[in-house]
Amino acid sequence: MIFFFYPEMSLRDWANGVLSWYDLTVNGQNFVDGVEVIGLLNFVYYNPTKVYFGTGVNSQVGEVVGGEFKKVLLLYGSGSAKSSGVYDDVVKSLRASGVDFRECAGVKPNPVLSKIEEAISIIRRDGLEAIVAIGGGSVIDSAKGISAGACYDGDVWDFYKRTAKIARVMPFFAVATLSATASEMNCTSVVTNESLGVKTGLTDNALFPRVTFLDPSVQFSVPAKQIADGGIDAICHVMETYFDGTSGVDVQMEYAEGLVRSLMTLIPDAIRNPRDYDVRAQLAWASANALNGTTWAGHAGKGDFASHAMGHTLSAKYDTVHGESLAIMMPAWMEYVCAGNEHAFARFARRVLGVTSPVDGKASREGIAGMRKFFESLGAPARLRDIGVPAADLPELADSTAFAPIGVLRKLGRDDILAIYRAAF
Amino acid sequence: MIFFFYPEMSLRDWANGVLSWYDLTVNGQNFVDGVEVIGLLNFVYYNPTKVYFGTGVNSQVGEVVGGEFKKVLLLYGSGSAKSSGVYDDVVKSLRASGVDFRECAGVKPNPVLSKIEEAISIIRRDGLEAIVAIGGGSVIDSAKGISAGACYDGDVWDFYKRTAKIARVMPFFAVATLSATASEMNCTSVVTNESLGVKTGLTDNALFPRVTFLDPSVQFSVPAKQIADGGIDAICHVMETYFDGTSGVDVQMEYAEGLVRSLMTLIPDAIRNPRDYDVRAQLAWASANALNGTTWAGHAGKGDFASHAMGHTLSAKYDTVHGESLAIMMPAWMEYVCAGNEHAFARFARRVLGVTSPVDGKASREGIAGMRKFFESLGAPARLRDIGVPAADLPELADSTAFAPIGVLRKLGRDDILAIYRAAF
Repeated sequence: MIFFFYPEMSLRDWANGVLSWYDLTVNGQNFVDGVEVIGLLNFVYYNPTKVYFGTGVNSQVGEVVGGEFKKVLLLYGSGSAKSSGVYDDVVKSLRASGVDFRECAGVKPNPVLSKIEEAISIIRRDGLEAIVAIGGGSVIDSAKGISAGACYDGDVWDFYKRTAKIARVMPFFAVATLSATASEMNCTSVVTNESLGVKTGLTDNALFPRVTFLDPSVQFSVPAKQIADGGIDAICHVMETYFDGTSGVDVQMEYAEGLVRSLMTLIPDAIRNPRDYDVRAQLAWASANALNGTTWAGHAGKGDFASHAMGHTLSAKYDTVHGESLAIMMPAWMEYVCAGNEHAFARFARRVLGVTSPVDGKASREGIAGMRKFFESLGAPARLRDIGVPAADLPELADSTAFAPIGVLRKLGRDDILAIYRAAF
Repeated sequence: MIFFFYPEMSLRDWANGVLSWYDLTVNGQNFVDGVEVIGLLNFVYYNPTKVYFGTGVNSQVGEVVGGEFKKVLLLYGSGSAKSSGVYDDVVKSLRASGVDFRECAGVKPNPVLSKIEEAISIIRRDGLEAIVAIGGGSVIDSAKGISAGACYDGDVWDFYKRTAKIARVMPFFAVATLSATASEMNCTSVVTNESLGVKTGLTDNALFPRVTFLDPSVQFSVPAKQIADGGIDAICHVMETYFDGTSGVDVQMEYAEGLVRSLMTLIPDAIRNPRDYDVRAQLAWASANALNGTTWAGHAGKGDFASHAMGHTLSAKYDTVHGESLAIMMPAWMEYVCAGNEHAFARFARRVLGVTSPVDGKASREGIAGMRKFFESLGAPARLRDIGVPAADLPELADSTAFAPIGVLRKLGRDDILAIYRAAF
């Protein structure tokens, strides 16, 4: 399995399939990788998803969907939608509003193209009008592919490989059951084409959920390991935008710092008190905001997803959990690129981790150590050796990651990447 | 002239015409005024406005509008649209994209109903399809009224007095020339009906601009007085949500604190260096975010607009500039309601103003004094006597303000309001 970089895909699409809904220019010039940019970049901000947030909102699904549509596809995964009771609530709500539905179940955690094709054929066969997706990132990512494919005569994979542009989509509604990827509030879909052995991401303004229902209380049963994994993902989403060489965007850096401070409190709180509604609610909202476009506006824009890129290589080869791969690679990347960028890392260390040293070099080192310690406190591994990666594999990992250019704060070639993997070992 | 409280209008509509696009319930219960709420309230978040932000974006107006519409109304005020060159840029851009337009000029700073009616009759006479509004809050607020009235057979004032519901609107585009009210990124319209002598606000999800073009460089010529006035307005928008008795919403309080910290740096910077793009850009984005829904989500929701309410009474009677009325009333209100709520005011003082006292009572007093000092540093008056209000008028001001209930953090009756006016004198 490889994570494939199609021509015309941006690095960001490749690394995490996120956020190309920002068209980035600096005073009419394209943003140049690796160059420090001072001040807000030109950007386009857009996020039309309507979010019904809070306890009990899933009982409104039928009323909201039924106001426009009478025959929908109900899409979900294999486990939690039913065990959490969300499926029952949604079905009850749809029936009460006279909304007819067909089902497509069994979306996998790493969603596959064949399931998207199956769903599209059900929609065509039964003349369905919209999609209601119950689940986390994988189900919502799949719904985005279905939404585009259902209104297209060709092969839906055309969109993922950039040989066709989305002209029209089928509206879809998301009922979120897991806060991590922020797919419930962005327009990115990451999918695996099993027959090609390719996993890739698609980002398009047409792919925002029309409405997302986000009831934090349905996440009471999400286990500690998954809270930690999703929380690390959310923190890294914010950090990867923060550390991309843009400075003089205080208003956006303030927001990012506040989000990370909050997440660093909320994640352990949610692990300790899994049924604390107030904690779950804040965690759910913070995770959605970590990748819904708010942190990105004008600030850096492209983000530096080098850690995500190196982490994806681990996941592809060893099936490493996404959050674990980030917990290892993010601090190793920070250490490697810190030289020359101490000021940004020191600011982060002081404002987010309470580091007091007035010396940038010392403060930034303490900040990086602090992040590693925090990830470890959540039970995440600190080193590649902890997850069983053999030292002999490191050159191959570097080759796999380096087939496309990565890095914005600092451009990373194959040797840089190998050095980071070695440091992470 | 009175600021009129129509039946079924919320206090928030009345005070500032803002944000009823949040439907507020706490676990299914309506939010109760004056009761401390712990944790995120249920809410609906929605903001579909697409924002083109940055230098030169106004040259894209024609392309974006012309993609959908060929005959539009061009709405603007009397002065700055033309003197700043924005009018010329927009006209050039519309012509280049083959978009035909009719003009309606002369929107006043406190926009009036008759201008909205004039614009609607031009739209009907010439069969126009959309609206392009060039200006600040008054022009964009007017465009919202026109947008609703153009698709309605009855009297557009019906919407403002809540005897009709908006069913359909004409799409409108905003070209923002002044950052203050955030009208460019919310769905509220405040208008004066001259024949009735009534000013009121209308908030409806249908009234978001479809697209806003926000080029900070066109604000280089905004004078210092107006920067200060708009900046104080933006800061108070954030504070009035922050101080409303909701606690345990750290993720949202962090965001609000960061915004106020940024604004307190950016406003004097913009006054000192009016042509500094990076400062203007951040100020423009911060002002839009101060009232675009982001700070409100789940946090407090209704906000406590008592300061706005008392300030509106001053503006109605003495034509006091909005920012000046807030600079006087906000600290006076803070002092009056602080007792029993020291914890929130102390948190704000420590995090925003750098107050170090560990004693809440002392810290909160220092914080209030700090805000008053900051407003004074911008050239705003500190006391009612400074703007020529006679002491003898205070009871009448209290009567005018108290005809509807105000206050969320603390409910304020007529005697409370009089005491606050006296303290502000």
